[in-house]
Amino acid sequence: MKRNLILMMILIVGLMTLPGAFADEKLPSWNNGKAKQAIVQFVTAVTNKSGPKFIRPAERIAVFDNDGTLWIEKPIYVQLVFVLDRVKTMAPDHPEWRDQEPFKFALKDDLNGLMAGGEHALLKLIMASHAGMTTDAFAQTVQSWLATAEHPHFNRHYTDLVYQPMLELLTYLRANGFKTYIVSGGGIEFMRPWTEKIYGIPPEQVIGSSIKTKFELRNGKPVLIRLPEINFIDDKEGKPVGINQHIGRRPVFAFGNSDGDLQMLQ
Amino acid sequence: MKRNLILMMILIVGLMTLPGAFADEKLPSWNNGKAKQAIVQFVTAVTNKSGPKFIRPAERIAVFDNDGTLWIEKPIYVQLVFVLDRVKTMAPDHPEWRDQEPFKFALKDDLNGLMAGGEHALLKLIMASHAGMTTDAFAQTVQSWLATAEHPHFNRHYTDLVYQPMLELLTYLRANGFKTYIVSGGGIEFMRPWTEKIYGIPPEQVIGSSIKTKFELRNGKPVLIRLPEINFIDDKEGKPVGINQHIGRRPVFAFGNSDGDLQMLQ
Repeated sequence: MKRNLILMMILIVGLMTLPGAFADEKLPSWNNGKAKQAIVQFVTAVTNKSGPKFIRPAERIAVFDNDGTLWIEKPIYVQLVFVLDRVKTMAPDHPEWRDQEPFKFALKDDLNGLMAGGEHALLKLIMASHAGMTTDAFAQTVQSWLATAEHPHFNRHYTDLVYQPMLELLTYLRANGFKTYIVSGGGIEFMRPWTEKIYGIPPEQVIGSSIKTKFELRNGKPVLIRLPEINFIDDKEGKPVGINQHIGRRPVFAFGNSDGDLQMLQ
Repeated sequence: MKRNLILMMILIVGLMTLPGAFADEKLPSWNNGKAKQAIVQFVTAVTNKSGPKFIRPAERIAVFDNDGTLWIEKPIYVQLVFVLDRVKTMAPDHPEWRDQEPFKFALKDDLNGLMAGGEHALLKLIMASHAGMTTDAFAQTVQSWLATAEHPHFNRHYTDLVYQPMLELLTYLRANGFKTYIVSGGGIEFMRPWTEKIYGIPPEQVIGSSIKTKFELRNGKPVLIRLPEINFIDDKEGKPVGINQHIGRRPVFAFGNSDGDLQMLQ
């Protein structure tokens, strides 16, 4: 009886000190192919203290693209849907938008008309829908939108349209002492309100594009106001720059699905 | 014998699960005055799961100014000493500096002459000494300098001139589940090479002023080049902006010693 108790205690201590011991059984949705094998081999090698490839936990940084890597990006970026919906919601206060490019395209869901205006047209919509409020108010707006908006084909909330194998991979890496980051071209403040709940990635581990903000006291209360001015574009050559700015060391593991991720993967 | 072993195991498990249990004995250099009492009371309250002031670990963010708060800032900022030393080291390759402001002031340690040129003069020296190399090369330079440079009065390395009570406070907070950050007007890449070893604060938890960087492939190797252009000034109104950019949530604990910290403390 006492012997069993001792064994049990040893087992508990063992499990507490070796959280990743059985973790390679934790990618159940993955086919047992080359990708999974390479990942498990890598993680096993870098966590083996007496092996030649050991990486100390502080250096185990893993970075992930978001759109198309962790969650859905088709038929159009989720954040673009948000932009179009916001413009429609705000339109009653802006009657002039009905005849004004690019707003009139947004109000009619005319994506071709919108895209013909290029980056400049898109930026106009983004600034109109993303700036002019406090950071807290913007986070609230994002959360309310995600709680109600649905994907046009799947009829489900966008936060349900995340990839199960990638959720398992995030969990597996964290169980092995990795710090998991998002490095996305999407808006940093568009992602932060929900990434902790959905991916287990806290706001301080989310890197993205941003607009400038300004500190103000409003009725004695300190707030940050979002300004209609680009601060940083976290795409292509911007991704390694953003990683250096936020993390300050080179990740050892990187995931992405597009040419916007090339420089980060390099 | 077996009973003792069981007790020991229980003690081990207990210590592992309650890392902060005895932590209020861990500020030995602090006088038992109001400041220490307020800190211990706050930490005890926010870590008490059944109490009204409980804060979950993910939200326990503590931010610290660096110059004058964690390490010495007299007689002049350590980073300014670094700038002056760098200019002297680089001078043989720049004979024109001998007659050129503000370089000639730096070469003669003429701080009054330098300060008369204001922010503009200082920026010139910073860009000459901080830009034009890769991020890796700059980090190397900082580390070599700190390994040899000594404070003019104390004749000790600057990384030895950190405040013992503050080191204890950092350790005490981390033992209680806090994530500790530096939020400094100093250069982010000037601090990151040494804060982990000296303060236990990893690079990703260091926020500071920065210049721009650019991604390049040099002989097929991806590097980031430091550009002579301001990216972000992390002082005064900049501190809350930097906190939002890097952390994305409001700290619950903030420390600073100057008017540059006012907005962060608000």
